[in-house]
Amino acid sequence: MSGKRRIGVGLIGTGFMGKAHALGFTIAARVFDQPFDLDLVSVADVSLDGAEKARRNLGFRKATDDWRTLLTDPDIDIIDITTPNLLHKEMALAAIAHGKHVYCEKPLAPTVAECAEMVAAAEKAGVVTQVGFNYLKNPMIFLAKDLIESGEIGEIRSVRGIHAEDFMMDASAPWGWRLDPKSGGGALADIGSHIIASLRHLVGPITSVLAETIIQVPERPVARGSSEMRAVEVDDITRAFVRFESGATGSFEANWSATGRKMQHDFEIYGSKGSIVFTQERMNELKLWLAGDDIRSRGYRTIWAGPEHPPYGAFCVAPGHQIGFNDLKAIEANEFLAAIAAGTRPGTDFREGFEVQKVVSATYQSAKTNEWVRIGND
Amino acid sequence: MSGKRRIGVGLIGTGFMGKAHALGFTIAARVFDQPFDLDLVSVADVSLDGAEKARRNLGFRKATDDWRTLLTDPDIDIIDITTPNLLHKEMALAAIAHGKHVYCEKPLAPTVAECAEMVAAAEKAGVVTQVGFNYLKNPMIFLAKDLIESGEIGEIRSVRGIHAEDFMMDASAPWGWRLDPKSGGGALADIGSHIIASLRHLVGPITSVLAETIIQVPERPVARGSSEMRAVEVDDITRAFVRFESGATGSFEANWSATGRKMQHDFEIYGSKGSIVFTQERMNELKLWLAGDDIRSRGYRTIWAGPEHPPYGAFCVAPGHQIGFNDLKAIEANEFLAAIAAGTRPGTDFREGFEVQKVVSATYQSAKTNEWVRIGND
Amino acid sequence: MSGKRRIGVGLIGTGFMGKAHALGFTIAARVFDQPFDLDLVSVADVSLDGAEKARRNLGFRKATDDWRTLLTDPDIDIIDITTPNLLHKEMALAAIAHGKHVYCEKPLAPTVAECAEMVAAAEKAGVVTQVGFNYLKNPMIFLAKDLIESGEIGEIRSVRGIHAEDFMMDASAPWGWRLDPKSGGGALADIGSHIIASLRHLVGPITSVLAETIIQVPERPVARGSSEMRAVEVDDITRAFVRFESGATGSFEANWSATGRKMQHDFEIYGSKGSIVFTQERMNELKLWLAGDDIRSRGYRTIWAGPEHPPYGAFCVAPGHQIGFNDLKAIEANEFLAAIAAGTRPGTDFREGFEVQKVVSATYQSAKTNEWVRIGND
Amino acid sequence: MSGKRRIGVGLIGTGFMGKAHALGFTIAARVFDQPFDLDLVSVADVSLDGAEKARRNLGFRKATDDWRTLLTDPDIDIIDITTPNLLHKEMALAAIAHGKHVYCEKPLAPTVAECAEMVAAAEKAGVVTQVGFNYLKNPMIFLAKDLIESGEIGEIRSVRGIHAEDFMMDASAPWGWRLDPKSGGGALADIGSHIIASLRHLVGPITSVLAETIIQVPERPVARGSSEMRAVEVDDITRAFVRFESGATGSFEANWSATGRKMQHDFEIYGSKGSIVFTQERMNELKLWLAGDDIRSRGYRTIWAGPEHPPYGAFCVAPGHQIGFNDLKAIEANEFLAAIAAGTRPGTDFREGFEVQKVVSATYQSAKTNEWVRIGND
Repeated sequence: MSGKRRIGVGLIGTGFMGKAHALGFTIAARVFDQPFDLDLVSVADVSLDGAEKARRNLGFRKATDDWRTLLTDPDIDIIDITTPNLLHKEMALAAIAHGKHVYCEKPLAPTVAECAEMVAAAEKAGVVTQVGFNYLKNPMIFLAKDLIESGEIGEIRSVRGIHAEDFMMDASAPWGWRLDPKSGGGALADIGSHIIASLRHLVGPITSVLAETIIQVPERPVARGSSEMRAVEVDDITRAFVRFESGATGSFEANWSATGRKMQHDFEIYGSKGSIVFTQERMNELKLWLAGDDIRSRGYRTIWAGPEHPPYGAFCVAPGHQIGFNDLKAIEANEFLAAIAAGTRPGTDFREGFEVQKVVSATYQSAKTNEWVRIGND
Repeated sequence: MSGKRRIGVGLIGTGFMGKAHALGFTIAARVFDQPFDLDLVSVADVSLDGAEKARRNLGFRKATDDWRTLLTDPDIDIIDITTPNLLHKEMALAAIAHGKHVYCEKPLAPTVAECAEMVAAAEKAGVVTQVGFNYLKNPMIFLAKDLIESGEIGEIRSVRGIHAEDFMMDASAPWGWRLDPKSGGGALADIGSHIIASLRHLVGPITSVLAETIIQVPERPVARGSSEMRAVEVDDITRAFVRFESGATGSFEANWSATGRKMQHDFEIYGSKGSIVFTQERMNELKLWLAGDDIRSRGYRTIWAGPEHPPYGAFCVAPGHQIGFNDLKAIEANEFLAAIAAGTRPGTDFREGFEVQKVVSATYQSAKTNEWVRIGND
Repeated sequence: MSGKRRIGVGLIGTGFMGKAHALGFTIAARVFDQPFDLDLVSVADVSLDGAEKARRNLGFRKATDDWRTLLTDPDIDIIDITTPNLLHKEMALAAIAHGKHVYCEKPLAPTVAECAEMVAAAEKAGVVTQVGFNYLKNPMIFLAKDLIESGEIGEIRSVRGIHAEDFMMDASAPWGWRLDPKSGGGALADIGSHIIASLRHLVGPITSVLAETIIQVPERPVARGSSEMRAVEVDDITRAFVRFESGATGSFEANWSATGRKMQHDFEIYGSKGSIVFTQERMNELKLWLAGDDIRSRGYRTIWAGPEHPPYGAFCVAPGHQIGFNDLKAIEANEFLAAIAAGTRPGTDFREGFEVQKVVSATYQSAKTNEWVRIGND
Repeated sequence: MSGKRRIGVGLIGTGFMGKAHALGFTIAARVFDQPFDLDLVSVADVSLDGAEKARRNLGFRKATDDWRTLLTDPDIDIIDITTPNLLHKEMALAAIAHGKHVYCEKPLAPTVAECAEMVAAAEKAGVVTQVGFNYLKNPMIFLAKDLIESGEIGEIRSVRGIHAEDFMMDASAPWGWRLDPKSGGGALADIGSHIIASLRHLVGPITSVLAETIIQVPERPVARGSSEMRAVEVDDITRAFVRFESGATGSFEANWSATGRKMQHDFEIYGSKGSIVFTQERMNELKLWLAGDDIRSRGYRTIWAGPEHPPYGAFCVAPGHQIGFNDLKAIEANEFLAAIAAGTRPGTDFREGFEVQKVVSATYQSAKTNEWVRIGND
């Protein structure tokens, strides 16, 4: 049809993230100059009705309630996993075993050992992998990284990172799967992994952490309105001091009970020559302070995303028009496809998901004893 | 395939807006529960290469360099016009003559008479029309309208509106089609029509204007770097006082030479009980002040877009994640499709485009003599 | 006591502004290196009780209910007038006749003719005068002026100015002296004169205006709760287009009924190479955009007041600590005293008050017929 | 003169804080309805020239280079200490021994033991004391406290506090007294004590801390430009997790090397029903989010300081005009004078300074071993 090679996608899961991934692929195919013709082959859900509805709405050709059928579908090159965390490993290993490239939502898996197993399998099979750390796929974050790498803010000295939302603020909200310790944790594992990924991306490897975890709502109703209570075993808040390989130091906090916050994925990075401040609440802006500016007119610059900040221009040729959350998923999908075409590894592949999970795990371990825990290399 | 009726789209034009419209339809089909199966049938461009490239990238089935072939294509129900303003009328009238629904970028046409002709043709033919006033298709603007209509800020007293960008700030930028007076004007017609549409949408009909236009850069090189100059005849800035049917008064400014501004589509609406402040620079926020709040804790509320502000939830189930410019186009396309299905008229149909153009025209007329000009009803 | 010359102040009026002036002198004497020893000699009020209370609280030596006694007090060098506008002329002329320097609150007088008479008298007598355009006495405004004069934002092209508050938003608030047309007008004369002063200060002389005035609340109770109504004859809102001698064009609005606004003394100044944005709501900040900054990292700089912005350092040696409204009055008083010592004229002397009043008057005149009115020179 | 009792002040130290205290007393005497006639009796400095200059500028009657003469001056009721931290104890104890009330800059003294000695002496002598935690003396902080105590944001759950500036960012800046470990520490003791005071004020007693300290610039030139280096022994950054008596948990950071920050005294307080966000960078604003607001129109309210937030109205009768840093000192001085008149204790007396110092000390202690340290009661 276009002379380009076809690439087929099989999606597992049709919730918030399933829809976002499908949109990401669809938008990516239209805004980026891709090496492939995208083929949304099949979508799997636990219910056939759900799968069929997603097929119709999201533009897939086939629907199934048996995700394993995707593995053997010869049209499918990519398995895209957006199911609950507990299922990631089984699905990813099966996909890898069938030689499929794998795109998986974060966190990669609840434990470091499971992540390691997934990385080993993927690397042995030589498939390309991608993990959904979508907040990194922002032209403003690319700019931040470029500013840091170019030395414009000097040597990084200190860092603060936060990921806070308030979806668990209501103490009467019932116990649910997010609170199941088998999933690997609470606020830190669920949303804190995003800020760990951002700090690693911008400041480099984290070598050790000293942390505490807090359970703010010690028990919740088993169901909305029920008087039967179930103990909460996972963290509502986790705070950590962190040390970076570069010598920089910092802190982060994960909090899903920060009343009023909807998307406080914020960081402040202080260098010897300048600083960068970002909040996901205003994801099309980046603040930059440069010590080298004339002293009487220096101040934090509020930089608005525009075509001078790739890949913003793929979405819109004019500055200031803004991209949205689903566009981050399009950038993420595009990066994955480009890596498949080039035979390279995206910056947020399974190995990076594994590295993030090591920090998550070390943080939980540190929180048990409030002692520094080193993040190992392997 | 889905049991739903198919609807076919033929797109004319493949530039900034052609791509945005194609994306709008594509995203709309995936996030909204639509009455139709969308069929992107054919795309036309002045060059066949351009059309073919757009076909591949944007997901159309056919490509052509003869837009008239779309008129007789039995698969096409909608003609979508994203060409330069001067071509809108001819294309729209031809589409209407063939019984097609028409989606047209703003401004509808350079003159009021042309707009009137287009409205008459569309209404006589009974086709559904839509004009691309995309900034209105924002959940935060829907909220603003809801707050006003519910009386929460009382009777509207005064209004300020601005649409300022800086793409013409550079005096050495060459003369181009935007500066051709045949297109119907300069900054006001090009971008000021957006703020007129916003004020009409939120505050109601404008009954009279008193205006001035300014040419800031009186001549420009005929081509970049050329020493041959061509006189500029259209406005770089237009300012107007406005009166609304409701009794409210206000002002607006259109400015495409406001150095530093990328998307200052801003308004402030002051009522007897509160006020609303918006800037497109932060399109996922709305500011609201309520006189009824406790005096010691009242202040402008910064409301972040979330699922409680339809149709944000169609894009993302979680608050604070933000939508982008192309998502506004998806809402616009969806509203158009819903109107076709229901046999109703969208709020920004050709008649509304005509009404906006009457204000644009009256504003230019007023600027000639600096006298109040009434906007007629017909 | 200090070897410095003593300078004596006689204050007339003990309300909001009387207190602010007394504080201004007092703070100025302590933070600036002044040429005089300040002597707060006497304070006059319509009631002796009021005068006596002000004497005790504000640090004067004497109190009187007869302001004329200040004229003949040999200890008094400066007459400071903070009474209602209608009384300014009589008091100022009397003070000048006695050879006193005069510090007078704005507006200088309700009519241009009265202002002219005051200027002529002051200049003939050779006394130094000062008018209370306090918002100009801000280190951030000094910075704005410096940035403009140094050419850093290029040739000024367009300007927007606003002074909006909401103290008249409540339609049930009773008729009062602010609404008396004898005082020379409404929102424009009362608060709009501030934004005219700011635009003149930063962009230069205004040569013509085209304006409209709006009465939003056409009648008000004669007293709070009364059912007897009195017609309102002065403007709640005035809007104007303005032309500057430099060729720049712009607009301003005065509005005392902008629900939610407390101190929206805002301006945006667009030049060929950059722009400046200011709001009095955040008076210790100035925003600056420079076209010459690297395209990928340029953005509005939020500059915080610090010692690098004189005379901030007189109040605080450390940046970011912020000054307040009364400190603006101290800068204003200090500038006046410095001019007396040097035998020069402050930038906001009676002549400047006269020039501002000419713009106020021309604006009201234009609003009667909605025709351009030139501001004369004399 | 006024029938009120005279109160005499003797000031020691004439630097940044000496001037701010003198201004605070002077402004307080004019804006507040005080029980005393203020008498600025004498000022002491290490050099007679410095003292004499301060006498003239700041309005004192006498000057001396021997601070002990203030102790026996019968006109002096208050000894005001703004000297380097190391001198606080000796001066305060001497003042107390002479029955003087004592106003002392923070930190009270370098060690907890010294603070305890000072508290014991003051309480035994029955004199009134005040410590300069000026950021607490802000109408917006009074509002924050009122909102918390009234239960409007529910039970406090979590807290983040920061005090960051950048005056030590330049690694070539020479070693100086701030770096002398005898003064009791670095960034935490110097500026971090402010955020500890704010958190205690708003959230209540801190019971334990887990902390780390960082030295970012390990050695500095002994003088500007010198090649001889001296090791830095005090913290550039201190980070801590904190537990409050109320059950709330949180964190704070002190950082004097945060490039670009001038006055980031920020906190975020999350309750079960709302949250409060403050930055000293915009000290006339407080942000408030209330879960109880209508879901579609709730958002952080930006509250501007006005007369409805005492004691703002003492400085200005109109809202939005803003107060400055020196006005905070006036509120602090006024609170001290009111306490003397009433025979009560200000909220930030020596005992509170002692409590803050206990947290500072426990934080440093924790940082040595990275273990939780309890803050003792005594």
